[in-house]
Amino acid sequence: MAKTNTKELKGGLGAVKGLQVAGVSAGFRKNPERLDLALIVAPPTSTAAGVFTQSNFAAAPVSVSREHLASQAEGKGFRALIINSGNANAATGKEGLVTAKQACSLVSEIIKCDEEEVLVASTGVIGAQLPYKPFSVGVPLAVNLLGAGRGESISMGLSTAEAIMTTDTFPKTAARSFVLYAADGTEVTYTVGGMAKGSGMIAPHMATMIAVLATDARIEQAALQQALKEAVDLSFNKVTIDSDTSTNDSAYLIATGAANPKEALQPGSEAFEAFKAVLREVCQDLTYQIAEDGEGATKVIVVDVTGAANSKDADLVARAIADSPLVKTTVAGHDANWGRIAMAAGKAGASFKQEEVSISILDLEVFVNGTPVEFSEEEALKRFKERSEVFISVNLGAGEAATRIWTCDLTKEYVAINGDYRS
Amino acid sequence: MAKTNTKELKGGLGAVKGLQVAGVSAGFRKNPERLDLALIVAPPTSTAAGVFTQSNFAAAPVSVSREHLASQAEGKGFRALIINSGNANAATGKEGLVTAKQACSLVSEIIKCDEEEVLVASTGVIGAQLPYKPFSVGVPLAVNLLGAGRGESISMGLSTAEAIMTTDTFPKTAARSFVLYAADGTEVTYTVGGMAKGSGMIAPHMATMIAVLATDARIEQAALQQALKEAVDLSFNKVTIDSDTSTNDSAYLIATGAANPKEALQPGSEAFEAFKAVLREVCQDLTYQIAEDGEGATKVIVVDVTGAANSKDADLVARAIADSPLVKTTVAGHDANWGRIAMAAGKAGASFKQEEVSISILDLEVFVNGTPVEFSEEEALKRFKERSEVFISVNLGAGEAATRIWTCDLTKEYVAINGDYRS
Repeated sequence: MAKTNTKELKGGLGAVKGLQVAGVSAGFRKNPERLDLALIVAPPTSTAAGVFTQSNFAAAPVSVSREHLASQAEGKGFRALIINSGNANAATGKEGLVTAKQACSLVSEIIKCDEEEVLVASTGVIGAQLPYKPFSVGVPLAVNLLGAGRGESISMGLSTAEAIMTTDTFPKTAARSFVLYAADGTEVTYTVGGMAKGSGMIAPHMATMIAVLATDARIEQAALQQALKEAVDLSFNKVTIDSDTSTNDSAYLIATGAANPKEALQPGSEAFEAFKAVLREVCQDLTYQIAEDGEGATKVIVVDVTGAANSKDADLVARAIADSPLVKTTVAGHDANWGRIAMAAGKAGASFKQEEVSISILDLEVFVNGTPVEFSEEEALKRFKERSEVFISVNLGAGEAATRIWTCDLTKEYVAINGDYRS
Repeated sequence: MAKTNTKELKGGLGAVKGLQVAGVSAGFRKNPERLDLALIVAPPTSTAAGVFTQSNFAAAPVSVSREHLASQAEGKGFRALIINSGNANAATGKEGLVTAKQACSLVSEIIKCDEEEVLVASTGVIGAQLPYKPFSVGVPLAVNLLGAGRGESISMGLSTAEAIMTTDTFPKTAARSFVLYAADGTEVTYTVGGMAKGSGMIAPHMATMIAVLATDARIEQAALQQALKEAVDLSFNKVTIDSDTSTNDSAYLIATGAANPKEALQPGSEAFEAFKAVLREVCQDLTYQIAEDGEGATKVIVVDVTGAANSKDADLVARAIADSPLVKTTVAGHDANWGRIAMAAGKAGASFKQEEVSISILDLEVFVNGTPVEFSEEEALKRFKERSEVFISVNLGAGEAATRIWTCDLTKEYVAINGDYRS
């Protein structure tokens, strides 16, 4: 059952056997040329899992999907996920809940399944009522396209990813195939594909704004939930753009079983571990794309904290550095002002002594065991100019725990994008 | 002993009897026209108190001042405070500690007191060694000016406040006088004056970057320390510019006793309560000026949270809103996008139900008991244009606790200022 030959594929969700996807323009946005409704349909006997925002202001679609997943855990199947952009259906009270349920109901009528077998997600402006009409226009359109897009469709996968974009500048997709031996010794090629959106309001602590992963392996819901949670903890939960956590953060994982319908991957098996490793890779690929596309970003910042007393401290320090506006602006300004990294580490509330700390930026040592060391500012500037990734490493000298967090720099464009987002 | 006639005064620390202050250009900065060294000298028998950053990367002057205050608690007096700008002497290892002590030693030799009777503070770039030479140039210069500035000197108070500025655009000073009856029934006029600096890297959790308060009342050190802590908790600890906590946050309170040397204000007395009220006013005045001068700021944002289950929850929610880059950019963009306020409240980790929450911005109700309400976008835009203060009020509907936090909007200029601070 060993994993072999992991291959990168194109098309994101379009690469996953058994899944049908489509992105259409339904009218949620003023611009009629922008896709704003994504529909994902899976064959009967599929399963799905989800992890959601921890916000007290969780959006209506998050509440409805939580309910529907609970029903699915009690025996219902998963058949479809409907996602709109342009409006988050968050902070919309009871009316928002009614609209989210109506959207599920409409999909269930057209594809003929139970309402509880449909999940829903929304992304966009918070606090405005989500109109129902675009669903009634867009869902039939999308269902028609599903036929055309059946199978391994790169273009359909991309347009689906495009339909969930807000301020993203490119659609984010990733996919990998891998080979396992079936019980009868034959080789089976499995696929994990996914898409994600989100470039601002990203500090999920639980899931990114919206990520949809899918595999053509057959996996029971409880095992799928566990695999999703583990993968999200090591990917989407480690990216932060602006420390803001969305009301709509949702990550879904769908298993169609189409690659080998007769045989489910069993938790604890070697095959399941192989699947989880590929799932993690796909999630980290999407996570990197989110950092790359941070609002106004020109650089990905990779923060590595080592030598922490425990993993909580490692996370606190890495997040304090990654969230610090002063660190993020110093990178935007191509300035190796590492004192701000020390400042951010110092405020994190972790347990360490400044005398034991070492810091490097752009692979240049700047502070070793509590003392500044000479480095070439010229060389730092050269590396800032040449590199699209800025590595910041901090060794706290307090233990063995380590973590990595992804973020991006903070530029004037972030402010421009967010200062007139609604207008 | 009742307090009467609180009056606003000009000149900050210059208004406090017994205190001698001066600001000079000593050469810490490249620009020879900028003041960069402040000296504050108090008469023998004065007392001082201090509260400091909680950062693990506390700067060298913070460590030295903590030590010297401990000696003063054991019987030494307070005689002087020396502050440089242009270099924070933070993350500078053992060499930094030596320089901070040398600065105290130099002052003590010239004004003839013990080294432990001198306190020290620094503000500016982190991670560069602080040169000693400018002290040897600047301290004698400043001591000479002290004579000229003796007494209630407005201009000396202002130049001292100017000497501690970094990216501040104006010096921050405040002063008040008030009248109490002495034991023999005569009226005594007391003064509280202060200065502060700080416009970025402000989210003190303990004290602002640097604030110096002084009074001409006589107050024992332990009582002074308690009064300072209480005032800071309700002022500097409630302002946040960018969620970054400095390595150098320090607030000092000096009591010269010059207004009435024979009679100390006793903790618990009506007179002491009157003093504390005026001290809090002066601190809040300076706090407001810090928010007003937030790096790149065009508006002060005042966040009021009411109806919280407890004061910790109130603080969590108010701080989450005040620190949210998305809330701060929406104010910069004159956009009443209140959904982001809901988002920030939701992520704070406080205990409340969204169905119970009400939100208003610019005194317009936008969300009442969990439901959005219609409001005039035109009126909101008008108020954004007219007002220099933006009030955000959130009632969580979960209890009786409340708090107020001051912050400012986030503009492109913040990024510009911080992207090339060192260059």
